[in-house]
Amino acid sequence: MATQRVIDFLATRRPEGPCLVVDLDIVRDNFRRLTGAFPSTGIYYAVKANPAPEILELLVRLGSSFDVASVTEIELVLAAGASPDRISFGNTIKKERDIARAFALGIRLFAVDSVEEVEKIARQAPGTRVFCRLLTDGAGAEWPLSRKFGCASAMAIRVLKHAHALGLVAHGLSFHVGSQQGNTQAWDAAIRDASEIFRTLREADINPTLLNLGGGLPARYLKDVPAVAAYAEAIRTSILRHFGNRLPTTIIEPGRGMVGDAGVIKTEVVLISRKSDEDAQRWVFLDIGKFGGLAETMDESIRYPITTPRDGAATEPCVLAGPTCDSADVLYEKTPYPLPVTLEIGDELLIEATGAYTSTYASVAFNGFAPLPTYVI
Amino acid sequence: MATQRVIDFLATRRPEGPCLVVDLDIVRDNFRRLTGAFPSTGIYYAVKANPAPEILELLVRLGSSFDVASVTEIELVLAAGASPDRISFGNTIKKERDIARAFALGIRLFAVDSVEEVEKIARQAPGTRVFCRLLTDGAGAEWPLSRKFGCASAMAIRVLKHAHALGLVAHGLSFHVGSQQGNTQAWDAAIRDASEIFRTLREADINPTLLNLGGGLPARYLKDVPAVAAYAEAIRTSILRHFGNRLPTTIIEPGRGMVGDAGVIKTEVVLISRKSDEDAQRWVFLDIGKFGGLAETMDESIRYPITTPRDGAATEPCVLAGPTCDSADVLYEKTPYPLPVTLEIGDELLIEATGAYTSTYASVAFNGFAPLPTYVI
Repeated sequence: MATQRVIDFLATRRPEGPCLVVDLDIVRDNFRRLTGAFPSTGIYYAVKANPAPEILELLVRLGSSFDVASVTEIELVLAAGASPDRISFGNTIKKERDIARAFALGIRLFAVDSVEEVEKIARQAPGTRVFCRLLTDGAGAEWPLSRKFGCASAMAIRVLKHAHALGLVAHGLSFHVGSQQGNTQAWDAAIRDASEIFRTLREADINPTLLNLGGGLPARYLKDVPAVAAYAEAIRTSILRHFGNRLPTTIIEPGRGMVGDAGVIKTEVVLISRKSDEDAQRWVFLDIGKFGGLAETMDESIRYPITTPRDGAATEPCVLAGPTCDSADVLYEKTPYPLPVTLEIGDELLIEATGAYTSTYASVAFNGFAPLPTYVI
Repeated sequence: MATQRVIDFLATRRPEGPCLVVDLDIVRDNFRRLTGAFPSTGIYYAVKANPAPEILELLVRLGSSFDVASVTEIELVLAAGASPDRISFGNTIKKERDIARAFALGIRLFAVDSVEEVEKIARQAPGTRVFCRLLTDGAGAEWPLSRKFGCASAMAIRVLKHAHALGLVAHGLSFHVGSQQGNTQAWDAAIRDASEIFRTLREADINPTLLNLGGGLPARYLKDVPAVAAYAEAIRTSILRHFGNRLPTTIIEPGRGMVGDAGVIKTEVVLISRKSDEDAQRWVFLDIGKFGGLAETMDESIRYPITTPRDGAATEPCVLAGPTCDSADVLYEKTPYPLPVTLEIGDELLIEATGAYTSTYASVAFNGFAPLPTYVI
């Protein structure tokens, strides 16, 4: 899966240690595929997936908008050349002084999921637009979705009425079906709930217009995933069914779906060993692990494709682990990873589809290992 | 639990955002308690627990030795003033070129748990001392111990014989009973196994002398833990029982036990909300979470004591979560955390006993949040 550009870059530059290489051509293709599949939907790139300046600058040029999680991410997007009206402050958990900072930077669109957050925004960002996040169950998603974000429908109505009463624009609703969502129908129940909330609010003379469909579009890891067009079609059908001819303005927040398959991590086999002479299973230790950027292997949630210089040889299941002295730094053990029996210490592997949620997850210095460097080409 | 010095520092300096404050007086007390309890055992501080330069410099002055996980940690310890003979390269997973770098820096003591690693060391650090790590099951430990490190006894014998044959000093054995070990008897089985391996090796005219007892000494979190002296007494009894009058040289590698209770994290309540009007449980969101330094709350393994400005008021169980847009960034949910019903947004909390395994675990920039700053006082 690694593009020839990435392979050539690694062969020419030979960076020391593990690194992430992102191919901007893939990001561009993904953006165009998304806008093609969702022609009347605003694309808000989820910056947290990968905030590399080159990625942000490309997406600014292509006309993307941005979903940010913090003031720092706002500053990154502005520095990349976007105007503040292209930014949504999508974190429902914000310090009041960070809301004030965002407002001063020109941000006028905020996520909430509680009356308490609405009150902060009314104080620090008067007159701006807010959307309320609904709680969904995340069924079908590969990365665990807890109850952390969103609130129940009845509370969402109260939250938006409160926003309206405090002079904010009760702009609409958002929800998230869970990251790396494999079911194209996963959006339907939340779209139905949202349409009912819109109707209830209109009875109170509040006219929400925004339906934020969140993220969830998958990257292709080992398993095949449905095409973006299939998600778009399922979502369009759901919106028509539930909203009829009073269609909302829609936005989506792809992160993994924009950059996941645009990145490749180069890593090196540090050690191959067994635990005992009777042990059928080899342990393969890499120079990157759970604390160096592969946090999404937590509970073996995300299973990345891996290519080796020995592909084609017979394989056997191996336990795959990282380089730190931490016992929890094991990537795949419950479901061992098939790797060539001829694999050797010093071999360089490519961990594919690692463009999202890797470089920023890396620990700052755990065990003295440096954070994962990113090369954007 | 926070010392008056820490409380005064926070009150005077008022650092913005979450931070870790480490009180060197506690580190000094812990070092003295350890040397008092283990008078004839070498103390090798596990640098990965907290590599702050001020901590390393204090421990150098006090006479500690050091267990390191990487070349960067070697450089930190040397920069703090230690000579290389006070350093053990305790990671069993080392790149061959890192072994060469360590050797060039003067390191002469290396951990191994495989024949493959022995061969790298024989090539790059000829004539040095190696100790082989034994696999243990970690029963009684709070932080999960996987099978990642160590090998079975029969393999350890083979590993040390191979080292001897390649001209290395087959110096001895190490093991680790698991971090935050609550059972003072946990060392006994491994000490027995080690004594048997020593006897077997002597039959082959190899005379190991080092028994590295690893880490595992607990910090005091919410639950009471046995005193260091109780561990020391149990270990001494085991060594006498299994080694008789041919006693090994012993070392221990305290990390958590040296700095865990010396640190306090200051954090702020960002939001308190509920998911629905019927929801009995409040969600309390802090400005630090699993990706900002509290990685050890993974699977709710480590339960930190928390103090609030409202302590004394009635409490109710709350879900405690971090500030990122990541659903997995929840600290305590399965076992909610009792917090005052009067707790308010903006309140500053102290998360106690956070001196170990926090600052370096912090992600470099996840969601745009900065890594956890450390103040050593």
